Amino acid sequence: MSGALKSILNNIKQNSVYVAQTSEVQRNEALRSIGEKLWQQRARIFEQNEKDMALAVEQNLPDTLFKRLRFDEAKLKEVLAGIEELISLPDPLERTLLMRELDRGLVLRRISCPIGVIGVIFESRPDALVQIATLCLKSGNCAILKGGSETANTNRILHELIWEAAVESGIDSAYLTLLESRSQIGDLLECEDSVDLLIPRGSNEFVSYIMDHTKIPVMGHAAGVCHVYVDRSADIELALSVVLDAKLQYVVVCNTAETLLVHEDIAGEFLPALSAALAGRELELRGDEKTASIIPCTPATEADYGVEFGDRILAVRVVPSTEEAIRHINRYGSGHTDAILSSDEASVGMFFSLVDSASVMHNCSTRFADGYRYGFGAEVGISTGKLHARGPVGLEGLTTYKYQLRGEGHIVAPYATGEKKFHFRDL
Amino acid sequence: MSGALKSILNNIKQNSVYVAQTSEVQRNEALRSIGEKLWQQRARIFEQNEKDMALAVEQNLPDTLFKRLRFDEAKLKEVLAGIEELISLPDPLERTLLMRELDRGLVLRRISCPIGVIGVIFESRPDALVQIATLCLKSGNCAILKGGSETANTNRILHELIWEAAVESGIDSAYLTLLESRSQIGDLLECEDSVDLLIPRGSNEFVSYIMDHTKIPVMGHAAGVCHVYVDRSADIELALSVVLDAKLQYVVVCNTAETLLVHEDIAGEFLPALSAALAGRELELRGDEKTASIIPCTPATEADYGVEFGDRILAVRVVPSTEEAIRHINRYGSGHTDAILSSDEASVGMFFSLVDSASVMHNCSTRFADGYRYGFGAEVGISTGKLHARGPVGLEGLTTYKYQLRGEGHIVAPYATGEKKFHFRDL
Repeated sequence: MSGALKSILNNIKQNSVYVAQTSEVQRNEALRSIGEKLWQQRARIFEQNEKDMALAVEQNLPDTLFKRLRFDEAKLKEVLAGIEELISLPDPLERTLLMRELDRGLVLRRISCPIGVIGVIFESRPDALVQIATLCLKSGNCAILKGGSETANTNRILHELIWEAAVESGIDSAYLTLLESRSQIGDLLECEDSVDLLIPRGSNEFVSYIMDHTKIPVMGHAAGVCHVYVDRSADIELALSVVLDAKLQYVVVCNTAETLLVHEDIAGEFLPALSAALAGRELELRGDEKTASIIPCTPATEADYGVEFGDRILAVRVVPSTEEAIRHINRYGSGHTDAILSSDEASVGMFFSLVDSASVMHNCSTRFADGYRYGFGAEVGISTGKLHARGPVGLEGLTTYKYQLRGEGHIVAPYATGEKKFHFRDL
Repeated sequence: MSGALKSILNNIKQNSVYVAQTSEVQRNEALRSIGEKLWQQRARIFEQNEKDMALAVEQNLPDTLFKRLRFDEAKLKEVLAGIEELISLPDPLERTLLMRELDRGLVLRRISCPIGVIGVIFESRPDALVQIATLCLKSGNCAILKGGSETANTNRILHELIWEAAVESGIDSAYLTLLESRSQIGDLLECEDSVDLLIPRGSNEFVSYIMDHTKIPVMGHAAGVCHVYVDRSADIELALSVVLDAKLQYVVVCNTAETLLVHEDIAGEFLPALSAALAGRELELRGDEKTASIIPCTPATEADYGVEFGDRILAVRVVPSTEEAIRHINRYGSGHTDAILSSDEASVGMFFSLVDSASVMHNCSTRFADGYRYGFGAEVGISTGKLHARGPVGLEGLTTYKYQLRGEGHIVAPYATGEKKFHFRDL
């Protein structure tokens, strides 16, 4: 790999402790300065964004991507509102998570602190750059950013303004770095000694690629295969409303339902009602044999289960029991979010206990699985990993802790011989 | 890889939820049965251990290893006391970590739960098998164990008795699996779909090898390079006592000090006092030029810093300031445990804030960095990683959490349009 980047990242790692030790007041002031500078210099931002937009036109980029590239006054105002909200959130650092007297005069504290250096690789949207950079600042972390080439000009000016405002506010210059060449991604993935955490934001293939090519811990999710299970005791009207919301409210996102499981005792009533409710709405149902014996649908194959369609397609399966629904979910699901619609507390309890997913839901839509909707304010992403942070991840997921032990000359020897004993008293 | 093991682990993964959903009472009863069965069947255990000991004699294994192999009545009693203590610890599962009403009738809970399937690879000591198996049971996890071949017979009988007692108590048979052939380690490392976490316990080389050869998250530490820094304001008597304890109380363990940093203003007084205190004790000092100008020592080279000697050797360096001591530690340390001996609160605060290690200590020995001494009861190990669990890891490190959201038919659509608003109220 390129020695230059390695050396840059080593330096950032060494200096990350100076970003980590900033006070809440300093970090919030820097966030305020960033917001002000972005607003003052908005003409420069829009000018650079126009360049990216013009290049996109030249290159005939698809309309959906085009929309994501745009960074205009409306987008800027959204971004600034996000910064205001971030400032208002409680400090995630210096929280005392545990305080225990081990013996007279020997006091242990567990204190929250930043993770250190976080690499974030994201596609297109320039507002993501601002969001990530400010989340990392609020949590005292250094951020290494690599954005998409389609917004290179916008990213460059945003990075410059944010970095300047932060440094002018007294934040160490190691705080923010923008990587601009694609080849640097490969180099970044090899810097496990300097980078503590990687957060890739993009397609499943992209996230999987990152996870497979680095020793650095990765936070994120490669797939969102969410299920809704309609139990025999479900309220039909409630179930129709929730299934339609979970599948159709926003089809391309990760917390959208991909598979519908229906208890056989209610299938004869629920499926025809679903069919009727879908009249005039575009949705392809791919059902198993039992489903096909009740309503018209495309025949499902094994390959339709466990797929994130990201489209107006819903796999459907009739199951003989809640146990079988749970087995299906644990086998084909991605551990993201799964819902049970039921009036039977025993089924709900079993579902909550046995479904091995980051979020389990009862009588509500899978679409609620989201950092903002969970009340975390800013969201880093949603994790389907089980370690560190699981489910929607807020600022807390960007922190770790350290133990601080204060003594008065205490040594281990007398405790090892039994001459002295610990008394462990939480303070 | 062998399809057989992959299929076995897949099955364990699917059934791990049945171990996860056991109650505290069930798990504690199973632990009690395990203790009783091990005691009742002790003759069989000792008989198998004799076989391992006889093989060790045949193979001329070194004395230190020989001692670690022995599993006699004294060792069994220690192990049983450990199980009793584990039973008395509070349940790490089903703890409500957050409870928040998002809107009327829509309540979010974050509940602690087991990680799932944990692979533990350990060397020699058969008591480690019992300790790990019971820690995993208390935390509702399935354990896949691979022990050293030197204790194959002892491991086999211990595994059989623990598994039997647990299953007779109603724990799912997926709970405990013993791998017996060395080739299965490679297979295990490839099972990232079925194994949620790996805990390797052994030499640095061994742990590094595991970390480098798997996509499964690994908890542990590859190196323990701990520092003691004697600040200019340190109390000389206190500093002598703590340095001797940190270095010599037990030299081979990971929380032992490897490098001593001394402020130049106190070096002229402290180093001769240290030299005098070491009279009659075997300890090789490897000092930099300034150290060598004050006391007799072996000249240190760059290669002596950042080394875990695991031996009666201490690297020594004189530093001009607390800042430089911190820079040295962050550069050469392993992020395990580092101590400052000082009477100056400003220096201590800077050290606590800027040293990027799992444990930082003031006026006490690095040897306190240990799960038992921190009051966690049972210890899984010490982690120098920053994600999930850091420092000494107790039962809490074997748990994760899931979000449980309960609604009354709530759907996202009206919140997306702004028709309804969340009110986020912690309960």
